[in-house]
Amino acid sequence: MADTVVRQSPLAIVCGGGTFPGAVADALVKRGRQPVMFGIKGWAEPSVVERHVHHWIALGQLGRFLRLANAERCREVLFIGSLTRPPITQLRLDWLTLRMMPRIVPMFRGGDNRLLTGVADLIEEGGLRVIGVADVAPEILIPEGVLGRYAPSQRDRSDIDRALKLIAALGPFDVGQAAVVADNNVLAVEAAEGTDLLLARIADLRRQGRIAAPAGVGVLVKAPKPGQDRRLDLPSIGLRTIANAARAGLAGVAVAAGSSIISEAAEVIAAADRAGIFLAGVRETAQ
Amino acid sequence: MADTVVRQSPLAIVCGGGTFPGAVADALVKRGRQPVMFGIKGWAEPSVVERHVHHWIALGQLGRFLRLANAERCREVLFIGSLTRPPITQLRLDWLTLRMMPRIVPMFRGGDNRLLTGVADLIEEGGLRVIGVADVAPEILIPEGVLGRYAPSQRDRSDIDRALKLIAALGPFDVGQAAVVADNNVLAVEAAEGTDLLLARIADLRRQGRIAAPAGVGVLVKAPKPGQDRRLDLPSIGLRTIANAARAGLAGVAVAAGSSIISEAAEVIAAADRAGIFLAGVRETAQ
Repeated sequence: MADTVVRQSPLAIVCGGGTFPGAVADALVKRGRQPVMFGIKGWAEPSVVERHVHHWIALGQLGRFLRLANAERCREVLFIGSLTRPPITQLRLDWLTLRMMPRIVPMFRGGDNRLLTGVADLIEEGGLRVIGVADVAPEILIPEGVLGRYAPSQRDRSDIDRALKLIAALGPFDVGQAAVVADNNVLAVEAAEGTDLLLARIADLRRQGRIAAPAGVGVLVKAPKPGQDRRLDLPSIGLRTIANAARAGLAGVAVAAGSSIISEAAEVIAAADRAGIFLAGVRETAQ
Repeated sequence: MADTVVRQSPLAIVCGGGTFPGAVADALVKRGRQPVMFGIKGWAEPSVVERHVHHWIALGQLGRFLRLANAERCREVLFIGSLTRPPITQLRLDWLTLRMMPRIVPMFRGGDNRLLTGVADLIEEGGLRVIGVADVAPEILIPEGVLGRYAPSQRDRSDIDRALKLIAALGPFDVGQAAVVADNNVLAVEAAEGTDLLLARIADLRRQGRIAAPAGVGVLVKAPKPGQDRRLDLPSIGLRTIANAARAGLAGVAVAAGSSIISEAAEVIAAADRAGIFLAGVRETAQ
């Protein structure tokens, strides 16, 4: 009973950049539940946020967010969309956040996972339950298997396996949702730069003849960090990922099935087909 | 007795780019042993190679190298200097190398360590002993301790520790001789791009406000990969490392003591002092 009430309450969606917040909101509406968009100023796209009931909040306005979510009768909240961790000095703090600073400051001493989990804890103490994409919009999670026309070769599969193991090994360091491996050689490990910059780097190195593997060899693999809270910050791919992977001369893109998200799936798959690269959902390495 | 003969034989120095080959040759001459420089075409600097008895070789000329080293009565060989792994198709193969290709091709399927160790094995089969910097020029190895005027803070020491552990964890993947950590947050992990590009990336991200830690926080740490053959491809730092670290807004640079090399040490230390950053040799994480 209580759970039914929660499930039917409007869902607060805290929106970072990109189209994913819109995809989640659309999925929600299809299921008959109301989204309330909380666009993060400077990150969320107005065209995405303003299609639904919405508010704008600044990073650091924890009190304002909880007040508004409460007024909208939200009982659950979901975080989605791109966001780079802000310098702590550039937050626009409201009173509640200021009061919480002794707890927030240490969260900045670590990777994104630590920071996000810390913020989620504060919000749950404020009375909202933090849920994930898998709970309300599983249709934007990437399924297992080959998604487009091309499939990974035996060598690609071995490269994918190596990248997954590398990402798993980096778990304790709260870093690295992505890596590029070509013919068993690790070419790039993602940290603060993000996937777009990482792929641009591969394209540059290839142009300069600094990558031994020929074009058409190499995979981009994205997977959640081990121990990462799956309600927060899932790996994502979109049209830009495909375009950049093709430009980097890769054979394809593999992502952790069931825990990575894809926006505009049909377009992304068509783009991969046109670029001649594979796109696959793969099972994560057992941890 | 036999060892004395070997020690007094001329030492073949296979020279990649940069000034390290010259530093090793100078150290050797001071000890009364003769260097024979084998400059790798396209990589070694003529001004470094041609100050001593020398030959030029192309990558892939294994037979030519062994013939010349033999004619020069070399019994030992040392590899030093920068070199990016070449595309296998761009090697200029001589007959011996061609005959060895069934063994060389698989070496390219992996990280640099695997490739270098494989080449060293082939050379040892050719009758030369492969030795390392520690054997003949320990004075260019970085000692433990603070080298310049500035010392790492408590936070820097904790960042250094995290980076060393990260590099150790990456050992099985034959990747990552360097990482940048700032206030416990891993900002960059080195793979194919090299340290200069890695530091340029940190500088860019900082300019774009994408790094939470303020300028003056963060360390570059370089250490050999665990399991790496210490005769080959030691981490190195020089003037450019210091300039790039300063530009990236780091607090300093820490390198594995006793297994990293420094060229023009006095100038490098003076540059670190002028830039206001620390430079330290640190003990590697126990493995």
